[in-house]
Amino acid sequence: MTRRLVRGAGAARPDEIRRHNLGLLLEQVHRDGELTRAELTRRLGLNRSTIGALVADLTSLGLLAEHVPSGSERAGRPSHQVGPRPDGPYVVAVDIEVDRVTGAAVGLGGRVLARRETRLEAGRSSPADVAEVIAAMVDPLGAALPAVAWPVGLAASIPGTIRRTDGVVEFAPNLHWQEVGFADLLAAKVRCGLPIHLGNDADLGALAEHLRGAGRQRDDVVFLNGKIGVGAGIIADGHSLRGHDGLAGEIGHVMLDPDGPPCRCGGRGCVETYIGEGALLRLAGRTAAPSRESVHEIVQAARAGEARALNGVRAVGVSLGRTVASLVNLLNPQVVIMGGSLSCVLDVARAEVETELNRRAMTASRRGVELRTAGLGEDSSLLGAAELAFRPLLADPADFAPLPNVAPLRNAAT
Amino acid sequence: MTRRLVRGAGAARPDEIRRHNLGLLLEQVHRDGELTRAELTRRLGLNRSTIGALVADLTSLGLLAEHVPSGSERAGRPSHQVGPRPDGPYVVAVDIEVDRVTGAAVGLGGRVLARRETRLEAGRSSPADVAEVIAAMVDPLGAALPAVAWPVGLAASIPGTIRRTDGVVEFAPNLHWQEVGFADLLAAKVRCGLPIHLGNDADLGALAEHLRGAGRQRDDVVFLNGKIGVGAGIIADGHSLRGHDGLAGEIGHVMLDPDGPPCRCGGRGCVETYIGEGALLRLAGRTAAPSRESVHEIVQAARAGEARALNGVRAVGVSLGRTVASLVNLLNPQVVIMGGSLSCVLDVARAEVETELNRRAMTASRRGVELRTAGLGEDSSLLGAAELAFRPLLADPADFAPLPNVAPLRNAAT
Repeated sequence: MTRRLVRGAGAARPDEIRRHNLGLLLEQVHRDGELTRAELTRRLGLNRSTIGALVADLTSLGLLAEHVPSGSERAGRPSHQVGPRPDGPYVVAVDIEVDRVTGAAVGLGGRVLARRETRLEAGRSSPADVAEVIAAMVDPLGAALPAVAWPVGLAASIPGTIRRTDGVVEFAPNLHWQEVGFADLLAAKVRCGLPIHLGNDADLGALAEHLRGAGRQRDDVVFLNGKIGVGAGIIADGHSLRGHDGLAGEIGHVMLDPDGPPCRCGGRGCVETYIGEGALLRLAGRTAAPSRESVHEIVQAARAGEARALNGVRAVGVSLGRTVASLVNLLNPQVVIMGGSLSCVLDVARAEVETELNRRAMTASRRGVELRTAGLGEDSSLLGAAELAFRPLLADPADFAPLPNVAPLRNAAT
Repeated sequence: MTRRLVRGAGAARPDEIRRHNLGLLLEQVHRDGELTRAELTRRLGLNRSTIGALVADLTSLGLLAEHVPSGSERAGRPSHQVGPRPDGPYVVAVDIEVDRVTGAAVGLGGRVLARRETRLEAGRSSPADVAEVIAAMVDPLGAALPAVAWPVGLAASIPGTIRRTDGVVEFAPNLHWQEVGFADLLAAKVRCGLPIHLGNDADLGALAEHLRGAGRQRDDVVFLNGKIGVGAGIIADGHSLRGHDGLAGEIGHVMLDPDGPPCRCGGRGCVETYIGEGALLRLAGRTAAPSRESVHEIVQAARAGEARALNGVRAVGVSLGRTVASLVNLLNPQVVIMGGSLSCVLDVARAEVETELNRRAMTASRRGVELRTAGLGEDSSLLGAAELAFRPLLADPADFAPLPNVAPLRNAAT
C-alpha cells in the first residue's frame, strides 16, 4: 500500500539542532548509499552515541534501515551499516520531452525502483494532455513498489524556462507552451495531495550530474543538454546558477554567427541552429524528425563509417567546440558534461570538439576543464527531478512520516 | 602620523558572536554611511543596549564616531548618529591600467580621501616598474590624511586573470605579463607590512558597482568593462562568480563571428575585436593609441556630429548589443552595467545597442534586464580594490587596531 505524506502540524517538535542533524545524516546516505556508523560519525563530527540516536530516529521514521554486516572477518565489533530503507519513501520523477514522458519511482539514494514511458505526438501535446499522462503514471508506479513504500513528492523536468517568482512555465518552445501554470494543472489531476515541483531540464540535469554523475565532487560544472533545443545547467561554486527570474542557461540562443541560419527565437545563427538535434539531422542528410531514435540512427551510421552521417556529426562537433569555448571563457568550469544528443556527438567527434575548443578558449581555462559525457545517460534530468522532489524531506526528515493504514493513492485519471 | 596595522595574537579574544556582530554593524555603516542607532537596532535585530555596546566597542577601536544630531526639532531624545570616523582606518586602492596607475586612499564608507595618478608607457611597464610606482604612492597618500589615520591594507586591480589558488597574475595580455607573482613583488617594495590583495579589474568593478554603484540592491549583476581588453564581472545571486580557477568573465574572447578579425588570443572574431577600445578607434577612423583620452575624443566628436566618429560608435553599439544578448541569455541578470569605453558607447548609441539586444535576446530575459552606465564613473575598479582591502577589517573589526606612536610608513622606494 502506498502511504500519504503527512506534515507534522503544531505537535511538539524536536529541537532545531536535532532536526538539522537528522537532515545532514539522511543526506549523506541519500548521496552515497550505505555507510557505516563509524563513517557517519567521522563525516558529521558528532560523537558515536549522538549518531546512534540520530540513526535510531531515522529508522523509526521509516527512512533508514540498519544491519550488521555478515561475514566480517575483522577482529572487534563490526560497525553497523546504515542505508536507505528499500521500502521507504520514494518520489515520482517525471521527464517531459517533446515526444515522450518518462516517469519513475525513485527511492532514497537515487535508485530507480520502477519506470514508465508514454509516447507523445511530437510537439502536439497540450499541457492538459501531458498532465493527464503523468497523473496516469502515479498509481502504476506506486503499485510496482512494496506495499509500505510511500511517496513524498512529484517533480517534473520541463524543456523550457520556469519563472522563479511564480513557478509558471514561461516558455517551452518545442512543446509550444507559453505562460502555463503547469504545477496547478498537475496538482488538480494528481489528487493525492503530493507536493508538486517543476524544474528546467538542463538545470535538473546539472543537479543530478553534480550529485551522482560526471560532475560528482566538482564545484563548477556545466551540463549542456542537447535535444531539439539546447540548454545549459550551471553549477557555480557548488550552487545552481538560475538567474534573476530563473531563466539562466539559454545557451541555445547565444549567437555563433550573426549571419547564420534563422532560429525559431527570431534571431539568427543561434547555437541551437548549429548543434540542436534538428541541425544534426540536417547536416547528416536525414529527413526524420528529431528524437532519441533518429539521433541514435545517425550515430550508429557514423560509427559504421557512413560518410554523410560522420560528416554531419563532425560538423556539429566543430560548432559544439565553439559553444563550449564560450562557456569555458565565461564561466571557467572544471567540467562540461554533454547530455542528450551532444553526448553522442562528443563520443563520435571528440577530436573536432577539442580542436575547436583549443583554438577558441583561453589557455588556462581550457587547461582546467574536462569534457565528459553524461554519467547518468538519458536519465540526468529525470534523476534531477527526483532530487528536487526529495529536497523537503532531506531538509527536515522529522516533518515527514508515513501514516499506516491510509487509503492508497488515487489520482483523478483512474 | 600613519599607523601600523597590528593583528591581535594570542590575546584573550572577545567571543565569536560579539565579533561577528561588530563586523555586521561596521559593514552597515561602511555600506550606507551615517546611520542612527535606531536604524542599526532595526537592521541587526538586536536590542538597544547591545547596539550601544557594539557602537562603543567600534568607537574605542577607532573605527566609528558618534554624534547627537544638532538642530533636531522632533520631540524626544534624538537617536545618535553613527558614522565612519573620518580620521580612522583607510586602505590604499590601486587601479593598474595599461597606460596609468591610479592610487587612492579610501576610507570606510568608500570615500576617496586622497588620490594620485602616474602615467605608464603603454604596455611597456614591467611588473617591477609598476610595483615601484605603487610603492611610491603609499607614503604621499598617507601624508595627505590626518595624522592619526591608519592603513589596513593595499589592493590592486589588474587588467588580467588572477589564479585563485596562488594569487598569481596568470595572464595580463595588454601589460604583457604572464605568470607574475605580483603580490610578492609588491609586498617586497611596500615595506610597511600592509596585507596585499589583487583582483581582476572587471570582478572588482562588479563588486563596487554592486555595493555602491549602478548595481546597488540587485542580486544579479554583470559589469562589462571596456578597455583595450573587454572583461565581465559577474554577481550571481549576490555572490561573485569567479570560476573554478578564478578565471571566469572572459567575455572578451567569446566568439561573435567565426570568420571575424584575428584576435591576439589566437582566436578569430572575439568580442574584443568588435567592442574593445582598439576596435572603436579603428571603426571611427582614428590612428591614436587606445586610452581614456582617445576614446573621449571620439565620443566628443560623435556628439558634435562627426559622421566617421558617430558611425564608429554605432557600429560598436551593434556588436555590444550582441554581446549583451549572449550574457542576458546565459545569465539572466537584472542589470548589465557598462564600464570604461563601453559606458561612452551606451551613452551615444543606446538605440543601436538595444535594437540588437531586442533582436538577439530571449524575450523574458530581455524584459527583465536594464542597461546602465557605471554609477562610479572611471572609479569602479579602483573602489572595488578598496572593498577587497577592507574585507578582513569588516570580517573581524576587533582584530584590527591602530597602535599609537609607531614609526610612520616607509616604503622601499623612498
